[in-house]
Amino acid sequence: MQTYLALDIGGTHLRAACFEQTGIIPLAQIKTRTPPTQEDPLSVLLPLLAGLIPPGSQPAGIALAIPGLVDQPNQRVGSAVNLPGWESVPLGAALQARFNCPVQIENDARLACLGEARYGAGQGCLDLIYLTIGTGIGTGILSQGVLLRGSRGMGSEAGHILLDPDGPLCGCGQRGHLEALASGPAIAREAWRRLQTGETSSLSHDKTPTSMEVGRAALAGDALALAAFANAGEWIGAALASLVHLFNPQRILLGGGVSLTGECLLTPVRRSLAAHVMDPDYLKDVDVLPAGLGDDSGLLGALALARNDLT
Amino acid sequence: MQTYLALDIGGTHLRAACFEQTGIIPLAQIKTRTPPTQEDPLSVLLPLLAGLIPPGSQPAGIALAIPGLVDQPNQRVGSAVNLPGWESVPLGAALQARFNCPVQIENDARLACLGEARYGAGQGCLDLIYLTIGTGIGTGILSQGVLLRGSRGMGSEAGHILLDPDGPLCGCGQRGHLEALASGPAIAREAWRRLQTGETSSLSHDKTPTSMEVGRAALAGDALALAAFANAGEWIGAALASLVHLFNPQRILLGGGVSLTGECLLTPVRRSLAAHVMDPDYLKDVDVLPAGLGDDSGLLGALALARNDLT
Repeated sequence: MQTYLALDIGGTHLRAACFEQTGIIPLAQIKTRTPPTQEDPLSVLLPLLAGLIPPGSQPAGIALAIPGLVDQPNQRVGSAVNLPGWESVPLGAALQARFNCPVQIENDARLACLGEARYGAGQGCLDLIYLTIGTGIGTGILSQGVLLRGSRGMGSEAGHILLDPDGPLCGCGQRGHLEALASGPAIAREAWRRLQTGETSSLSHDKTPTSMEVGRAALAGDALALAAFANAGEWIGAALASLVHLFNPQRILLGGGVSLTGECLLTPVRRSLAAHVMDPDYLKDVDVLPAGLGDDSGLLGALALARNDLT
Repeated sequence: MQTYLALDIGGTHLRAACFEQTGIIPLAQIKTRTPPTQEDPLSVLLPLLAGLIPPGSQPAGIALAIPGLVDQPNQRVGSAVNLPGWESVPLGAALQARFNCPVQIENDARLACLGEARYGAGQGCLDLIYLTIGTGIGTGILSQGVLLRGSRGMGSEAGHILLDPDGPLCGCGQRGHLEALASGPAIAREAWRRLQTGETSSLSHDKTPTSMEVGRAALAGDALALAAFANAGEWIGAALASLVHLFNPQRILLGGGVSLTGECLLTPVRRSLAAHVMDPDYLKDVDVLPAGLGDDSGLLGALALARNDLT
């Protein structure tokens, strides 16, 4: 039996699973704490993966999703703030030597886009934009059937398109990027700004709320929390208009923790996108939908990559 | 002898040429006034093209560059403000019937990018961004070797990415797009704004200058004119930073009338791009250069398309 190994390595947890040639129900899967570099990640990963493979089977492909940039020539982590020290781990070479099959490593937001395109809410799309909105804003873009990477794998960073030259500072050091205006922390900051003006809210006026607290309040109908989400949705819609003018996609998917608030975010995003697009024809048959695979999108994107199931 | 026909149809003039299998020196070429629809463009185009083909030769491919959106299913002009009425001309069908070979129609800025990538200043690049800056801002983007079109051919419109929500009105009806901030008319407007504040300049303080007049003054060292170009360059560099984060290109080319001012525009563009990019690694070995083919870029891009010389 041919099998495929998929890994989604996050900052705190990693998920790994073994799949058959077709289908997305794993033969075996595991979720565990991401080992810090001091523990030698390979001494954890190699037995963990070996344990997922059914007896007598040989993996035909392995792919890993990582939360950062990939050093493709050396098949390892290039830079990932949430995986400190992993740059020195020879991920690709070690896995290939151990399992004797092709190993591919790719950014997790891009793989989430691929996962949604192959097995989730983006099925049938050759042109798909996927945003994952959480602590940051990650993006995957499928353009004319090909996952956008750029010349050296640094592309597809739509969280860092400029929307407001006078806007707030972004984690990257620049100003007014989408991520600085509409990520979870930006929503929490906007809620806190409104709390400080004395607006009524079910949120505590004594401390900065977390974006999760703002999300829960929004889902319960709190007007201030809804306004903070509407503000983020306005920026996301404006950014999507630029992306729609560039990529003319068939569908747009929103994933990540912030998007779990559903219509609290989706409705203002759709309204803003429609208001900012230069020709309504761009949005003909194009909808903004919730991502379909939840936490599995990165893992299933890695599966698609391991299978070379790309179009 | 196998020959290829390339056409670049502009709002006022059209250029057509016949080429051999290789090389970019035409066997025959013509530049003439673009026929208005009342004159039945096909009754002008068909004999004009036939006259370019050497006796005994049969064209193996034809491609047309048009200044607007292409209606690909019907192989004709979809919408082009400078070609009023051409939507009803069955360009593709008529040329195919007459010359019995494949006919392709594509947007002129995209073909200019392809022309530069195959035969001009973008040779060797699989990831190339091309801006043509004139009355508007047209864009062609080669991404991972493929010309960006989007799902229905409406993509690659980087002139219409949002840069400043409070910015000036764009020709498309939206606000603060790159085209509204940095095209020829925007430069003329900025020069006029500065003239009205009483700044000294060689430009007349009595009437709005044209962007060509501002360009000539900038080339002659006029400080006000240079400041108007620096302002446009600042916005172009900011927009390019977003495009660099998305496409991670190997090279960026500027063409079009406004770019004929050379370093008056290029220097501020490079400075602004470097200031707005989130990681200097994006600009490693990446330069912003003048396009290399001048007025021939669209025609030679059509040649590359006619030859299917795409990568």
